[in-house]
This record gives sequence, structure tokens and C-alpha cells, in this order.
Amino acid sequence: MGVIHRNAGGAHFAWPEVPIQRYEGGNADRAIKQVLIGRAEGAPSFNLRYFCVEPGGHSSLDRHAHDHGVVVLHGCADLLLGEAHQTVGPGDVIYIAPGEIHQFRTVGGEPFGFLCVVPPRP
Amino acid sequence: MGVIHRNAGGAHFAWPEVPIQRYEGGNADRAIKQVLIGRAEGAPSFNLRYFCVEPGGHSSLDRHAHDHGVVVLHGCADLLLGEAHQTVGPGDVIYIAPGEIHQFRTVGGEPFGFLCVVPPRP
Repeated sequence: MGVIHRNAGGAHFAWPEVPIQRYEGGNADRAIKQVLIGRAEGAPSFNLRYFCVEPGGHSSLDRHAHDHGVVVLHGCADLLLGEAHQTVGPGDVIYIAPGEIHQFRTVGGEPFGFLCVVPPRP
Repeated sequence: MGVIHRNAGGAHFAWPEVPIQRYEGGNADRAIKQVLIGRAEGAPSFNLRYFCVEPGGHSSLDRHAHDHGVVVLHGCADLLLGEAHQTVGPGDVIYIAPGEIHQFRTVGGEPFGFLCVVPPRP
């Protein structure tokens, strides 16, 4: 059965009916995670998550076997991707390949929010 | 290797370096498709596409074995999901389960743009 999660937050995005989880990497007190599509929705083949990282926050320095598809929704961040740093902002689409080093650090005074697609956990 | 596709279209979204494809369903002259993450980016486990349907346009009435994850970026549409019609707008997240009937029809005068995640083609 299909599911609709309504955005109640306008340009800042909020899905009040989706549980807010503690982010387990980076400086965790400055980031939250919501699984928008995953096990709860019955999705067998991919997960879609939303992360929001406050100013001064960052994600963990990651390198793993699965890939990521990222779409920035709001705010800006410095992205370490492989060996290069680049600034990313709203609407930018990022593909992070398997095994590639990556980390986001919020830039500026606005929270950095992004969608992240991953394959399902084995 | 990772890839960044820059949004050059502000709130209306545009990724000039990504080829624009003809949409092959619905009333095709009123819709376009861009594959933001897929074979060209080397992604093995999911595809992320962007669709934009002009006012008066609609997607095909679909029912298939794979599922969809949809995030509305701009505009509004009437969504037929299973047996129910619902209006969806910016930021709404929709999970379309395998085998579920679905169709989008643009509502109002603004183009309806959305992201759509699918598993890779077998």
C-alpha cells in the first residue's frame, strides 16, 4: 500500500508524522535523521532518508561499500568527496560512489537539509 | 567516482549538464525526464530521475512490479494512488508500492516537478 508523508514545513521541510531519530555520526547533537521511505513503508529496494545538520554541525567522515544519492533541500555545506572539497547548495544532486570518502559540514547560518537514497541494508 | 550535478534553476530546478529526455508515457509532449543518477553516474543499485509535467499534462496510468519513491519539488498534482485521488504539493513524499496503480495530473498553472527513485532495471 502506498504512503504519503505531507510536508508541513514549507521551504524548510518537516514531516511531522515521521519519527525523528538521533543521527549516530558526526557531532550527533547537531543533526537529526528521518527515514521517509524504508521498512515502515514496506519498501524492499531502497531507503530515502532526510538529514538536517545545524550550523556548526557535520556528518561523520564515511567510507563504505554502498553508494548514496543526495539532493540538497536547504542550506549549504562543504562537501569532502574523495580528495576534493566543494560547496553544495539547494537543488544540487550528488552521487557518492561505493568506497568513496565523504563528509558534509554545514556552511553559514542556516541548517543544511538533504535527502539521501541508499540501497536497503543486507 | 562521485558526481555533482549543479542546480542552476533556483526554486524551479534545472540541471543543464544532464540530458533532457522525452517522457514516453502520458501526454508525452507536456513532460520531460532527466536521469540525475543512473548508469551514466555508475550507480549500481538505484536510479534517481526528475520529471517535469506542464500544466494540462499527466503521467501514464501505470502499474508495475517495481516501486517508486517520489518527492515533489514544485507545483501541484492530482495523484491517483490505488483507488484514491489526492492532491500533492512541494515537499510531499510518496511511496508507491509494487503493483499499485498510479498517475499524476498537474493541477493549476505551474509545472509539476518531482524526483522519482526506482530500483535499477534488471
